Amino acid sequence: MKNDIITLGHGSGAGLTKKLITDVFDKNFNLPTLDDGVEIENRMVVSTDAHVVQPIFFPGGDIGKLSVTGTVNDVSMSGAIPKYILITYIIEEGFSIKELKMITESVQKTAEKAGVKIIAGDTKVVEKSKADGIYITTTGIGFLSDKVELSSAKIKAGDKIVVNGNLGDHTVAIINERQKLELDPPPKSDCAALNKLVQVMLKSGKVRFLRDATRGGVATILNEVAEETGLGIIINEEALPISANVEAICSLLGLDALYMANEGKLIGFIAPESEDVISEMKKNVLGEKSAVIGETTDKFTGVYLRTSIGGMRPLLMLESDPLPRIC
Amino acid sequence: MKNDIITLGHGSGAGLTKKLITDVFDKNFNLPTLDDGVEIENRMVVSTDAHVVQPIFFPGGDIGKLSVTGTVNDVSMSGAIPKYILITYIIEEGFSIKELKMITESVQKTAEKAGVKIIAGDTKVVEKSKADGIYITTTGIGFLSDKVELSSAKIKAGDKIVVNGNLGDHTVAIINERQKLELDPPPKSDCAALNKLVQVMLKSGKVRFLRDATRGGVATILNEVAEETGLGIIINEEALPISANVEAICSLLGLDALYMANEGKLIGFIAPESEDVISEMKKNVLGEKSAVIGETTDKFTGVYLRTSIGGMRPLLMLESDPLPRIC
Repeated sequence: MKNDIITLGHGSGAGLTKKLITDVFDKNFNLPTLDDGVEIENRMVVSTDAHVVQPIFFPGGDIGKLSVTGTVNDVSMSGAIPKYILITYIIEEGFSIKELKMITESVQKTAEKAGVKIIAGDTKVVEKSKADGIYITTTGIGFLSDKVELSSAKIKAGDKIVVNGNLGDHTVAIINERQKLELDPPPKSDCAALNKLVQVMLKSGKVRFLRDATRGGVATILNEVAEETGLGIIINEEALPISANVEAICSLLGLDALYMANEGKLIGFIAPESEDVISEMKKNVLGEKSAVIGETTDKFTGVYLRTSIGGMRPLLMLESDPLPRIC
Repeated sequence: MKNDIITLGHGSGAGLTKKLITDVFDKNFNLPTLDDGVEIENRMVVSTDAHVVQPIFFPGGDIGKLSVTGTVNDVSMSGAIPKYILITYIIEEGFSIKELKMITESVQKTAEKAGVKIIAGDTKVVEKSKADGIYITTTGIGFLSDKVELSSAKIKAGDKIVVNGNLGDHTVAIINERQKLELDPPPKSDCAALNKLVQVMLKSGKVRFLRDATRGGVATILNEVAEETGLGIIINEEALPISANVEAICSLLGLDALYMANEGKLIGFIAPESEDVISEMKKNVLGEKSAVIGETTDKFTGVYLRTSIGGMRPLLMLESDPLPRIC
């Protein structure tokens, strides 16, 4: 019977989500499955995302900030410069107008900081217990310069895989709030708009492909890329930038930062000999801890972690994610 | 205390919604308040809407069809030709995958019929009792031809006000389902994409301004236009196209079709001597019952109904709508 109903796993961004996309959406829409931002015409890129994060306010952000940065990032990963955001609110009856104002101010502040403009919106209200505070959908519109052409098809064996900083911060911030772990100081979400960092990276001309590592984490994206390109991927455990806080939570709860959602982290596939890209990334406040974490290969297929003691462990695509409503 | 929380009235599309827009959104975003579709650049028009209609399936449509037609219509009212739709689903855990497929097929079928393409999507899942089946947000993108320039600022005294058919059908279809009135045959929603009808109307060059009469109904839009233009509006009760079914429900429940939501009806402000526009509209399957229902005047301000016995009754903007989640 379980196959007939939607489960939380269908929203995890992992294997069950892919299955739902294949079974329900691809049959009808023929959507691109790998890239979040879609180029339509005149070098215009669009993307849309619903946001249901719980709690609504968390250290480092809130649902309003997340809704803007998430969509700014999706548009940016195509290489486009995001310019406009459209937004809808679905609000539960009884929600505090004060909190609604705080969220809306956060939306505007985040948009201003990222250099995008909120241009249209809609609000619906549903009865008590037919939502959970507020849900926000954002749609982003951006434009690609003529030079930029990022695609997973451009990835070659030997390319370096780079991330712009610590993994798992957003998920750990949410777990700390939700499970009331009361870590001190409370871990902060990495929620941030990456559009300016992306433009810094693109100047080199060495970037082949970018993705933001949200739901499903770095491991899910690596698996998608491995499947799409037919290349193998090796990740070096020792090279992974992970904070002591996140390490501790992972040990404590048996979680893996490679599968955790980030809200201000991208994975870049860049040409070999790209030290200049990394050093430029490190000059950006959102790239200070940038690191090469692995590379692609044509010697095998699939995704593997080279552990700190030298073993090779497969990094599989999970069916589901233990933590719903992370974004 | 009631002023501090969101009520269902805040989602009604009527006075309380306007107040929320003024208090919360205008302060931050400076959104245009009158037009649903917003022109951004290169003659491109965008619009976004969340859909929370209950029940999800109703005679004449479902939430999938409504989500596409609603956004196609919002883009179309600017005079633009809608071309792309982005879509997000927020699904309640336990929702039937069979129904999800039916809704998704309905989305695709409606898009094909309207000549728009679904180009991007996102799905989130929330826990049982944190949603009500499924909520859908759609964003539409369309393009304006160089000739078209519709605006409430173009409306002049003496302009005719036209609608393309019977009022109140969508609301009555929803009431019949929700209140289990068991009318036989069950009244059908007018849910339809108006983009092709709009293009027929625009050929005349006599159209000044268009709006689709959804939440808040014809009366709310007329009040918005009266306020925006400073002109008066007279509506002739005898000219209003209303079906016997809707008349009966209005009498029975003390409702007024002028305040009911429609999902396939537009209000046009057109130049005087526009018999040719009306006759062209009547040739379109969605305009067969088109009628001139009133006109604008500079003799007074506000909106009035000339009743069938010759009296003049003010048609005020309501604070709220008795029927939540109509779209």
